Amino acid sequence: MKQDSLKVAVIGAGLVGTLLAIYLKKAGHDVHVFDRSADIRKIEFSGRSINLAISTRGWKSLDDVQIGDQIREIAIPMDKRAIHKKDGTLAFQKYGMKGESIYSVSRGGLNRLMIDIAEEKGIHFHFEQKIWDVNLEEAIIHIGETERGDWTDLKFDKVFGTDGAFSRVRHRMQRQNLFDYSQVFLKLGYKELCIPANEDGTHKIDPNSFHIWPRSEFMLIALANEDGSFTCTLFMPFEGENSFEAINTEEKVKDFFMNNFPDTKELIPDLVADYFKNPTSSLITTHCYPWTFKDKVALLGDAAHAIVPFYGQGMNAGFEDISEMYRQMEKHGNDWETIFEEYQKIRKPNADAIAELSFRNFVEMGTNTADEKFLLQKKIEAKFTEKYPNKWLPLYDRVTFSLNPYIDALAIGDQQKNIMDEIMSIENIENIWDSEEIESMILSKLK
Amino acid sequence: MKQDSLKVAVIGAGLVGTLLAIYLKKAGHDVHVFDRSADIRKIEFSGRSINLAISTRGWKSLDDVQIGDQIREIAIPMDKRAIHKKDGTLAFQKYGMKGESIYSVSRGGLNRLMIDIAEEKGIHFHFEQKIWDVNLEEAIIHIGETERGDWTDLKFDKVFGTDGAFSRVRHRMQRQNLFDYSQVFLKLGYKELCIPANEDGTHKIDPNSFHIWPRSEFMLIALANEDGSFTCTLFMPFEGENSFEAINTEEKVKDFFMNNFPDTKELIPDLVADYFKNPTSSLITTHCYPWTFKDKVALLGDAAHAIVPFYGQGMNAGFEDISEMYRQMEKHGNDWETIFEEYQKIRKPNADAIAELSFRNFVEMGTNTADEKFLLQKKIEAKFTEKYPNKWLPLYDRVTFSLNPYIDALAIGDQQKNIMDEIMSIENIENIWDSEEIESMILSKLK
Repeated sequence: MKQDSLKVAVIGAGLVGTLLAIYLKKAGHDVHVFDRSADIRKIEFSGRSINLAISTRGWKSLDDVQIGDQIREIAIPMDKRAIHKKDGTLAFQKYGMKGESIYSVSRGGLNRLMIDIAEEKGIHFHFEQKIWDVNLEEAIIHIGETERGDWTDLKFDKVFGTDGAFSRVRHRMQRQNLFDYSQVFLKLGYKELCIPANEDGTHKIDPNSFHIWPRSEFMLIALANEDGSFTCTLFMPFEGENSFEAINTEEKVKDFFMNNFPDTKELIPDLVADYFKNPTSSLITTHCYPWTFKDKVALLGDAAHAIVPFYGQGMNAGFEDISEMYRQMEKHGNDWETIFEEYQKIRKPNADAIAELSFRNFVEMGTNTADEKFLLQKKIEAKFTEKYPNKWLPLYDRVTFSLNPYIDALAIGDQQKNIMDEIMSIENIENIWDSEEIESMILSKLK
Repeated sequence: MKQDSLKVAVIGAGLVGTLLAIYLKKAGHDVHVFDRSADIRKIEFSGRSINLAISTRGWKSLDDVQIGDQIREIAIPMDKRAIHKKDGTLAFQKYGMKGESIYSVSRGGLNRLMIDIAEEKGIHFHFEQKIWDVNLEEAIIHIGETERGDWTDLKFDKVFGTDGAFSRVRHRMQRQNLFDYSQVFLKLGYKELCIPANEDGTHKIDPNSFHIWPRSEFMLIALANEDGSFTCTLFMPFEGENSFEAINTEEKVKDFFMNNFPDTKELIPDLVADYFKNPTSSLITTHCYPWTFKDKVALLGDAAHAIVPFYGQGMNAGFEDISEMYRQMEKHGNDWETIFEEYQKIRKPNADAIAELSFRNFVEMGTNTADEKFLLQKKIEAKFTEKYPNKWLPLYDRVTFSLNPYIDALAIGDQQKNIMDEIMSIENIENIWDSEEIESMILSKLK
């Protein structure tokens, strides 16, 4: 059903805002994107980023507007985890059951390219425009230098809030009656570090691996960039024995890395300088509902559901919001009240599910990936999946390499976990895992 | 330890703000209370109130500053629930195991009296002063007619936020890094109704009962006022078959009450007028943490932990916050950072516990109070408590008639519930409940 052309505002020129703008433009609207920051294409962007991993859901949303191939040019496939053990040895784990990859891309690089693409399509970007408040009933946005200073009011037909975890649009909605909201910070922060390229521009370690140094309550990860460098992220508690509070001198930083990540000594030459220069950022999970206000305002991406990064699904989930919104636009034409209502009803439980999965996955990333039992379990699952592809898809694959709703992934994943917990508790499982007995046991439990 | 005298601001002249002011004055401080509304003593206050039930914790906080007796003069003891069944018959349930009462008092009446008392003690009240923001680092409050208009800045040594569930002080704290916050609305709203006094000023029904018309998903309650009237509250879903949305005509209101609360026909003469005149209010639970900012700002009462009213503990819990704050002031003198830190560490888990208990109690109030099995269970518990007072105190009594921490009430209550669930599932329990067998079964489970 075709829609009448509207003048719409998208608040936030990040990844979700920019892709949403492309979809809205495709639907025939006059699209204005506002961002409080300067044009990311004209400034140095760094110091507090975690590289992104684009996976199946993300590619689907990009490909549906024919921009996936342009993005693929700056994305580096990672088909496995490279586990850096404390003794300096390496172990590899393939990601997908069918050899699938996730794709490393720098947030800044991706955002710049997407804004270029969007501008070419005739979308209007307005940078350094701070939106302090929104009149929800009238879809008027209030722009100004400061929260208390003079504001300019701009009227639109719709306002889309894609302004991230600390969304001002949501902030206004929070002050409505019957608006549920929560924000919860992890006791864990993160800090960006860097593995520079070799002098010839090549990568110092395998670029096609997601590198991870799992150490239970803290961990280091590294994802490759196109220029030969890696963006590293250290996740660590704010307080306690191994914490950002405790590791607070040059010597302590060196000792800490020497003891825990010995193989990074040569890789991260600016360790100390970067550690003290780069900020320690926090990690937040937000839930809210409703996500829309009448037929006027809608939240998408982190503004509606900020999640922790441990499943690599934050951006992918945000892109999936856009696909769902567009599906509803195609279905309901000018009936925006129904579009918004259906959009939020379908997406909310899925956002809750990926929030829960992401929260749980820190434990898997930090601990289990280094564990022998975990590896054996993966092996059993892999074998079973290969033999019965219609009966079993491991949780990671269902989340990352399928378009199955997150809510199903969570439910089926829980069921599979119960089965595998029972299997792994069988005595002597190390020796009999490959047996018909185990196979038929799994089969019977699946019924 | 004596404290140096400080100039302190209390934001919110409600019950918790006013009692806190009295405590701060007692400690020697220069206390200024600000409220956005007009002086409650000079205006009509009504239309969206639920009568309060003062219980043991509340009295303790009032008596510790020697104002309990003045309050008792306007409070009406209720020693039982009066259950109004659908067929018009009545059943009574004693509240306390030892004949204790809770005390009905109108919110407006109590607040007026407490402000009178506070003013006499030299506390300064500033009404119609809207606090829009707080500078947390400097303890400066920003006052003005409107959120966007001109503001006056006032500097204090400390700022106490007692400005309720929608606290502006907390609103500022929410924008700090690492501040956890949630607000959740019930799908249930409430509306105030009134049973007026007889012409001679006497009560139309027993004033010493907490009247309740439990009907599962909705219910009506009535608490006596000094002037012979009762404040009634109808709790009902916003949407659905029996809901504020569905019951929307004069005829439907009359039918609904006739069918569900037949004995109220004579009691609530202005039913239809009040139903349409009085607003439908919502019910919110909030959680947040931290409750304090350095040694400058602290939240107490609903501003820190708004709860639903089904345990009658909202005000009592807020008063207990004050007692704990004062205990820490006595202990740590001028070390306000420790005072605030200890206060929040001790009170936070207790606030979470009473929030959970209050949420659960709607089910008990709405459903179980009318249920034969529920009454039998109460009888078994009562008998056991009488025989073994040191081994068993029913949950309601522990919450309402003791000073045991809420967190213990929740934990012990859960343990007792598990035991009673087992006991109640015994075949033929109706006939053998009074036996030695049951008694020793409970005893053995308590070990």
